[in-house]
Amino acid sequence: MDDARTFWWPVRVYYEDTDAGGIVYNANYLRFMERARTEWLRASGFEHDALREQGLQMIISRADIRFRAPARLDDQLQVGVQVTRLRRASLGLYQPILAADHRLLCEADVTAACVDVATLRPRPLPATMSGDLH
Amino acid sequence: MDDARTFWWPVRVYYEDTDAGGIVYNANYLRFMERARTEWLRASGFEHDALREQGLQMIISRADIRFRAPARLDDQLQVGVQVTRLRRASLGLYQPILAADHRLLCEADVTAACVDVATLRPRPLPATMSGDLH
Amino acid sequence: MDDARTFWWPVRVYYEDTDAGGIVYNANYLRFMERARTEWLRASGFEHDALREQGLQMIISRADIRFRAPARLDDQLQVGVQVTRLRRASLGLYQPILAADHRLLCEADVTAACVDVATLRPRPLPATMSGDLH
Amino acid sequence: MDDARTFWWPVRVYYEDTDAGGIVYNANYLRFMERARTEWLRASGFEHDALREQGLQMIISRADIRFRAPARLDDQLQVGVQVTRLRRASLGLYQPILAADHRLLCEADVTAACVDVATLRPRPLPATMSGDLH
Repeated sequence: MDDARTFWWPVRVYYEDTDAGGIVYNANYLRFMERARTEWLRASGFEHDALREQGLQMIISRADIRFRAPARLDDQLQVGVQVTRLRRASLGLYQPILAADHRLLCEADVTAACVDVATLRPRPLPATMSGDLH
Repeated sequence: MDDARTFWWPVRVYYEDTDAGGIVYNANYLRFMERARTEWLRASGFEHDALREQGLQMIISRADIRFRAPARLDDQLQVGVQVTRLRRASLGLYQPILAADHRLLCEADVTAACVDVATLRPRPLPATMSGDLH
Repeated sequence: MDDARTFWWPVRVYYEDTDAGGIVYNANYLRFMERARTEWLRASGFEHDALREQGLQMIISRADIRFRAPARLDDQLQVGVQVTRLRRASLGLYQPILAADHRLLCEADVTAACVDVATLRPRPLPATMSGDLH
Repeated sequence: MDDARTFWWPVRVYYEDTDAGGIVYNANYLRFMERARTEWLRASGFEHDALREQGLQMIISRADIRFRAPARLDDQLQVGVQVTRLRRASLGLYQPILAADHRLLCEADVTAACVDVATLRPRPLPATMSGDLH
């Protein structure tokens, strides 16, 4: 993992994120990853609104998640976003989630696709996005 | 509570509904109540689609919830809907949640309003709804 | 609302918080309010762990929520916590949620109770809490 | 997909499951899949309680999800569970999600592990489970 190319976003674990097993519920890591992707796009100038004005939306077409160790209530996590592949209408992303002591708790390979907001059909990424997301 | 006038909908508690306290997370009772309201409207012929064709949507403007006793993983709950007040553009509902042994776990007084789907402004309930929801 | 006595916590709205109506889903305001309560307790030195070491947990026994205007995707909200009543084993809280332009979107009166972590029975608030939460 | 060996569980889409894009939010498909796994285990006699009495819990260690087409509000989905691999302490599962017209909306390969409820360390599946889940 090349840290210089990774965007990090902090996420605190609240009761809403945990389950009766005392740990973060599995689906919620996907929510944390989306928050990081959204903030990474915002930091690059691609807020949802800006994309929608061009009739575009980013959706995910695949997520391959490995759960390594559980996160718990009150944990302060770091959620990463790293571009691993840049195509005409899609992005490959690597998204690690680290504990405060930098242990890897969870990681995912995510494919995000650029689609038409109305038809949900693939559309090329904005030219500026291809350039800025390197 | 007049059982003859109460619509009941069963809800099973899954891991997703619980939190690290080992009980159902407070906000999720509102989700259960909405499922029951949706099924009650569907049973009365008012699916979301049917309302939307008339440019209408039901939203809630107030919910006063009292948490009496916790629900737990795997519990089989019954969620009720009872009309307590019928106005031109809004409904008052009483929504109890019972355990399998009929203990009251949670209850809410909910005000649901009929609004224009685009502007979110109040609109009269469909005439047929006022008649059928008694 | 006496601002000097109100604790504020920022909450950003993500896709996970919204619904097909294009607005924040009603139950999620309760999640936002719990985040603010947790951070307010943390800022006062009462993290969940510190309470649990004393065998205590804060739960909510009532929430009376009024939905005034919808929050939307990407909105940057402020969630408030203000003590309105301090009893031996419970707290009354007022929790407003404001838009970036300070419009009131949602508000709730919440009763939080201090309970034994194992039995969920009422227990007196820690003496230091009663003092610090004024 | 060999239908004779697939367990199916119906899931209705409510407002809580959708997002501002008008479709089911990506993380929620994982919640639907867990409901189906829970009901499949229950139907096989392995309720959470029965496992916990043996000090065991099932957790997922990996989920590789492909999102094919969006599910929408009010859709009536079928969520499948099929055993694709049975090891000493883990199960491989294929979980498709179908629309009412049998179109494939989403599918996942899920690895579920049997762990000690306290330590979260791997533990062999109960002997009866290995037999009954074929």
